[in-house]
Amino acid sequence: MDKRPIGVFDSGVGGLTVLKELIRCLPRERFVYFGDMARTPYGSKSKETVTRYSRQIVRFLLSEDVKAIVVACNTASAMALDTLEKEFDVPLTGVVKPGAKAAADVTKTGHIGLIGTESTITSGIYENYLKDYRPDTRITGKACPLFVSLVEEGLIEDPVTAEIARRYISGFRDTDVDTLIMGCTHFPMIEDTIQRIAGEHIKLVNPASETARSTREMLEEKDILNDTDISLDEEAYRFFVSDSPERFKKIANIFLPQSVSNARQTDVERF
Amino acid sequence: MDKRPIGVFDSGVGGLTVLKELIRCLPRERFVYFGDMARTPYGSKSKETVTRYSRQIVRFLLSEDVKAIVVACNTASAMALDTLEKEFDVPLTGVVKPGAKAAADVTKTGHIGLIGTESTITSGIYENYLKDYRPDTRITGKACPLFVSLVEEGLIEDPVTAEIARRYISGFRDTDVDTLIMGCTHFPMIEDTIQRIAGEHIKLVNPASETARSTREMLEEKDILNDTDISLDEEAYRFFVSDSPERFKKIANIFLPQSVSNARQTDVERF
Repeated sequence: MDKRPIGVFDSGVGGLTVLKELIRCLPRERFVYFGDMARTPYGSKSKETVTRYSRQIVRFLLSEDVKAIVVACNTASAMALDTLEKEFDVPLTGVVKPGAKAAADVTKTGHIGLIGTESTITSGIYENYLKDYRPDTRITGKACPLFVSLVEEGLIEDPVTAEIARRYISGFRDTDVDTLIMGCTHFPMIEDTIQRIAGEHIKLVNPASETARSTREMLEEKDILNDTDISLDEEAYRFFVSDSPERFKKIANIFLPQSVSNARQTDVERF
Repeated sequence: MDKRPIGVFDSGVGGLTVLKELIRCLPRERFVYFGDMARTPYGSKSKETVTRYSRQIVRFLLSEDVKAIVVACNTASAMALDTLEKEFDVPLTGVVKPGAKAAADVTKTGHIGLIGTESTITSGIYENYLKDYRPDTRITGKACPLFVSLVEEGLIEDPVTAEIARRYISGFRDTDVDTLIMGCTHFPMIEDTIQRIAGEHIKLVNPASETARSTREMLEEKDILNDTDISLDEEAYRFFVSDSPERFKKIANIFLPQSVSNARQTDVERF
């Protein structure tokens, strides 16, 4: 039993879709969320750069006395998680492994589609984890670089987003892909469009829900769940960003049913 | 007369459209270009963050012994140039002042349109400079945040880009705007689309050409032009980036007629 908060980080706002699932699955936990708004996005940056940024963020979160850390960013999970696990002593979990597990559980044909940022797709990390769960599966990946900007501009139900989705996704219809991993935290925001274009026979996998479940398991295993209620008048959810908080608060409203009012800026480069 | 190179920097690749004009206008000059690929884009980030990044880049360029610096990024020119001029002793020029001057020379109605990133538009900096040249002008600005991603994905002549351009720009047709400043270095890449949608009666202004001219004037004034030929077998144009150079080299090919082969990575955060 451990009352300390769980750290959650992302390159920006996308990880809020993961935080939402974490709060739902772990209602007694406190959370510290960090969004790297000064250096967002990560999806087109190199492994070395994403690892350096992630390392600074983990150090910052540890300074906030977190008991565990969820890497709520596919790109950072794909590129930096293995290094972070070697370098830090804190329990860590990412979104890729749970996403791969969920897809392995769902697929019947064994052919899984994956959409994400350029960096996530080319990393090959989903393939690696999938082989662990089900060696008979194979993955067809497709980078969808414009989805992040479209979602952040609020074009959620929009013909432009649908047209771009058609270009990225309709190719899956001509294959025996029966499961499509939304391998970027922004993508569940346009899940309806993706589903419509992929076709109803394809099952969409949102790694966020599975990540929340596997975070719970990790906390149980290490016996660090919080088993007392959090109180309504405490700051149970704290938000930090590397740039001024205005834009974060604005876009957070697209991602969360609640508004974020208390985001604070922190100088993550010094960590 | 000064043989040292001119420093040119941008948040990423966009400044290459400015470099192209600089090379054309100053064929005897050497250049050191820096693209901040690890932290790109700047257009949605705060003044404080963009200033901090720009300051590090100027320090890096000075370590490369440049004789003058061109801030080839509208956002950095809008948000950081005044601070940089106070803090550094090197001759500096941006793209905003020359862009404003060019527009003031062109407009007949005195009503100027401005398209750019969110940060450039909200800074109000173009208005400030325009008032200096022609107090009777007024500006109508429109942030076009998706253009940068669309250009970087290579959607130059594309119905999606045209549709987004219609949403951003067609409003200018119902006004007496007769001049439209392309206040972001990516936008000249889709100049044909912008022109078509704005209408032929609107004159587009690309600040890059005027920036090149005003850089020449600045060098003449300070008597630091290079008056001997640069040789074909020297590295007259050097490129540095803050992330691994692969993506920079790839996108540079969209922006430049020549390819960039010698981009090197530098750790700009330590400056």
